[in-house]
Amino acid sequence: MSSLTKLNFKIISHLMGLLLMVNGGFMLLSAIVSWYYNDGKLNEMLLASAVAVGFGAAVMLLTRNHRKEIQKREGYIIVAFGWIFMALIGTLPYIFTGAISSFTDAFFETMSGYTTTGASILTDIEVVPRGVLFWRSITHWIGGMGIIVLAIAILPLLGIGGMQLFAAEAPGPSGDKLHPRITDTAKRLWLIYVGYTVAETILLKMAGMSFFDAINHSLATLSTGGFSTKNASVAFWNDNPMVQYIIIVFMFLAGSNFVLSYFAFKRKFQKIFQDEEFKLYSIFVVALTVVAAFLIYFEADLNISSISHPMVWGPVENAVRHSLFQVLSIITTTGFVTADYTLWTPFLTIFFFGMMFLGGCAGSTAGGIKIMRHLIMIKNGVLEFKRTLHPHAILPVRYNSKAIPQPIVYNILGFFILYMLSFIVGTLVFSWLGLDFQTALGGAASTLGNIGPALGNLGPVNNYAALPDAAKWWSSFLMLIGRLELFTVLILLTPFFWRNR
Amino acid sequence: MSSLTKLNFKIISHLMGLLLMVNGGFMLLSAIVSWYYNDGKLNEMLLASAVAVGFGAAVMLLTRNHRKEIQKREGYIIVAFGWIFMALIGTLPYIFTGAISSFTDAFFETMSGYTTTGASILTDIEVVPRGVLFWRSITHWIGGMGIIVLAIAILPLLGIGGMQLFAAEAPGPSGDKLHPRITDTAKRLWLIYVGYTVAETILLKMAGMSFFDAINHSLATLSTGGFSTKNASVAFWNDNPMVQYIIIVFMFLAGSNFVLSYFAFKRKFQKIFQDEEFKLYSIFVVALTVVAAFLIYFEADLNISSISHPMVWGPVENAVRHSLFQVLSIITTTGFVTADYTLWTPFLTIFFFGMMFLGGCAGSTAGGIKIMRHLIMIKNGVLEFKRTLHPHAILPVRYNSKAIPQPIVYNILGFFILYMLSFIVGTLVFSWLGLDFQTALGGAASTLGNIGPALGNLGPVNNYAALPDAAKWWSSFLMLIGRLELFTVLILLTPFFWRNR
Repeated sequence: MSSLTKLNFKIISHLMGLLLMVNGGFMLLSAIVSWYYNDGKLNEMLLASAVAVGFGAAVMLLTRNHRKEIQKREGYIIVAFGWIFMALIGTLPYIFTGAISSFTDAFFETMSGYTTTGASILTDIEVVPRGVLFWRSITHWIGGMGIIVLAIAILPLLGIGGMQLFAAEAPGPSGDKLHPRITDTAKRLWLIYVGYTVAETILLKMAGMSFFDAINHSLATLSTGGFSTKNASVAFWNDNPMVQYIIIVFMFLAGSNFVLSYFAFKRKFQKIFQDEEFKLYSIFVVALTVVAAFLIYFEADLNISSISHPMVWGPVENAVRHSLFQVLSIITTTGFVTADYTLWTPFLTIFFFGMMFLGGCAGSTAGGIKIMRHLIMIKNGVLEFKRTLHPHAILPVRYNSKAIPQPIVYNILGFFILYMLSFIVGTLVFSWLGLDFQTALGGAASTLGNIGPALGNLGPVNNYAALPDAAKWWSSFLMLIGRLELFTVLILLTPFFWRNR
Repeated sequence: MSSLTKLNFKIISHLMGLLLMVNGGFMLLSAIVSWYYNDGKLNEMLLASAVAVGFGAAVMLLTRNHRKEIQKREGYIIVAFGWIFMALIGTLPYIFTGAISSFTDAFFETMSGYTTTGASILTDIEVVPRGVLFWRSITHWIGGMGIIVLAIAILPLLGIGGMQLFAAEAPGPSGDKLHPRITDTAKRLWLIYVGYTVAETILLKMAGMSFFDAINHSLATLSTGGFSTKNASVAFWNDNPMVQYIIIVFMFLAGSNFVLSYFAFKRKFQKIFQDEEFKLYSIFVVALTVVAAFLIYFEADLNISSISHPMVWGPVENAVRHSLFQVLSIITTTGFVTADYTLWTPFLTIFFFGMMFLGGCAGSTAGGIKIMRHLIMIKNGVLEFKRTLHPHAILPVRYNSKAIPQPIVYNILGFFILYMLSFIVGTLVFSWLGLDFQTALGGAASTLGNIGPALGNLGPVNNYAALPDAAKWWSSFLMLIGRLELFTVLILLTPFFWRNR
């Protein structure tokens, strides 16, 4: 145990205190929403905020004389425990207001929020007080902000699963120091994140949503979260295609690399069109939509589901819109729903299940394996054939015209294998806990990929309420490790991490 | 096209002719079985044999003045087309005797034999003439012999998915020349293969099987094939535990590295107990059996299936035997059946589905991913965590106390990813062809892993007869690429393979 004292626990605690205070601040914002809509929960929301801020402030005060140095090992602890502490303190608004009475449920909902998963245990969303619903959407949005910092500044330094590659593309001062990168790069990208959120809110309001629905759906879109304020999710607006197209555009943006949005604002358009990940992402979205739309149009009947699908703009547009929406919702790991893909055709069920393993772009708020990793695995796969034929040739993987160092490719292959292993273990545990075949497979893929809707009893029109408690905790764990790119959390479970050197 | 002339097609054709003649020889043996049991198909079997031998002899004569050199590219073509030509000529006994009337079905059954899969389209096995049944079992056994040569001598030279590692362990003269390795190493291991087959036949006969059933089941066990002479597979002997234990022992041996059997006969027992793959293989078998037996005993009712399970030696032995049998049958990719694991518990269905991705040991006749590759992936996974923490440390993967060169580990990771990709594409195509969710997933895992029984409509008590023709051809393709370790076949589909240099 003496070796552990070398870890700088004081700065870890100090940063946890800061996170609690930030969260308390956002709870105060939610309290204002409670007050504005007069939902009768103002006092409870203020209390939650006060506890979070007070507790955070106390921790910060107690640890104010900390050493400034952070090393890699502190980095892992801060990231993993940061998310866990946020999920713990984030339960307060649910519990104080009585919106969710069980602690397990409240923790699940909060973890689902911060990990931008959007899986919910609420069976009737529309009766939840507005301040609490706003808080629920805000957990997504805070999670998304965290993920941007993580992707741009922290994971590359920690050397996780190829994120190093991506960091080289990020704007801002170069060099390996954590601090200046966070403040400069992250601030720029946060500005874009905030800007997109505001823009989507205005557009959704103009298209006919209420202001409250508009802001909540924007918070959930940009973070690729997927919590809705309606029980039917975005299917509530199936008679308003404009609303759905606006969400489609912002899902696409949220699932793409925010650095590219930055280039767009700098008018460096060639940088966007030369980006290989963006190209493959666009190709996936178009190709998968075409397949789904074709099958929906000719083989499936949208209206066999419990969701109504009025053909506002005709049957072709209907088929295209609902396939595009569902494809983007799964690929970007948002999880909004306008139709139930598990009722389309048996092929499309498997098709969407497969899509759960794609994930959005690196540097977006999307979860999952990520397009960049697939691209490098595909390229490496082709080269592996050439290497087999010409074992003495040196054939490096090239990405955006640069040769990628072997250890990074190695790291990406390792990430994929660990992801599949986590999926298999995830499925086995779900199945052990009593979930049926499809539900267990879909649930593991969906929680690990931070998507939300899955298959079977966890399909698009169902929710996670009926799961046994143990399965809710297991889901929370899978959401956490999936969101933090596996290594960050799982390394804390290895004995050598805690040994000194 | 002119570049293609540089390939030594004459020697490729010459070897194909040799394969046809060998197969014709085994057909003659099957004709003798027809004569001995007087099944009325002697003439048809003799005709099949004559066609195969005659055609093979003609090809060999026409290509007798070939250059002797074989290079890597010829190697791939010989391996892939060798299996395809064998499967084509192997349909003759089925078609000439009328035992299988459709060519698609006959090709499926033959490919299933040569790839040692054991998936069958026969709905009533017991009415098939004995000579044809014997031929069916012989296709397994020839396939198994082919796999031993492939694993020991050919794949390491072609540089496929880590088989290089394993080759270093094989007995016989070192050096990279193909010819002496085949003749020396393979002959020794073939002797063990033949010896085990004879031993199992004698033991099964002593335990109460008829001589015909004994030899057929031995041919199918040692090759990890799984064709039975009974409709109920080995469940036919559910009242004779001794028969099942004998098959259990030989499945275990067939799924282990034949080189270790060689060491056993040389009394080098420490070599066996120090072998890391053998250790992990044994651990898997024991651990998975314990889990399954525990659940069968306490939660599942064996007798809810259409198969009867008389408790000859009591309920505990019953649960242990049937779990051990099914676990070994799936891990070693044999595919014999004494109980229907898809009816046990939902958890056990997923559990057996997961097991389909293990595979036996390298250097055995088992298919699948193989324990050796899993072992190296596990070790590399752990090291990847350490590398993340200490990026400048050099941490090679060690296997049987030797450091493994990076390109080989790389190759193994690449193999796994290609395997999973083939599984996903396999499932999507099955699903496209109309198979339901479970059947598509199980069918892809089972054919790719050369197992046989799968899930859903392809479960242990079903067969592949009801599949649409396209799905039978797709299964044949998956069986082929799975058996030949993916690269060997898939490389022939790349354009650069056919370009000169």
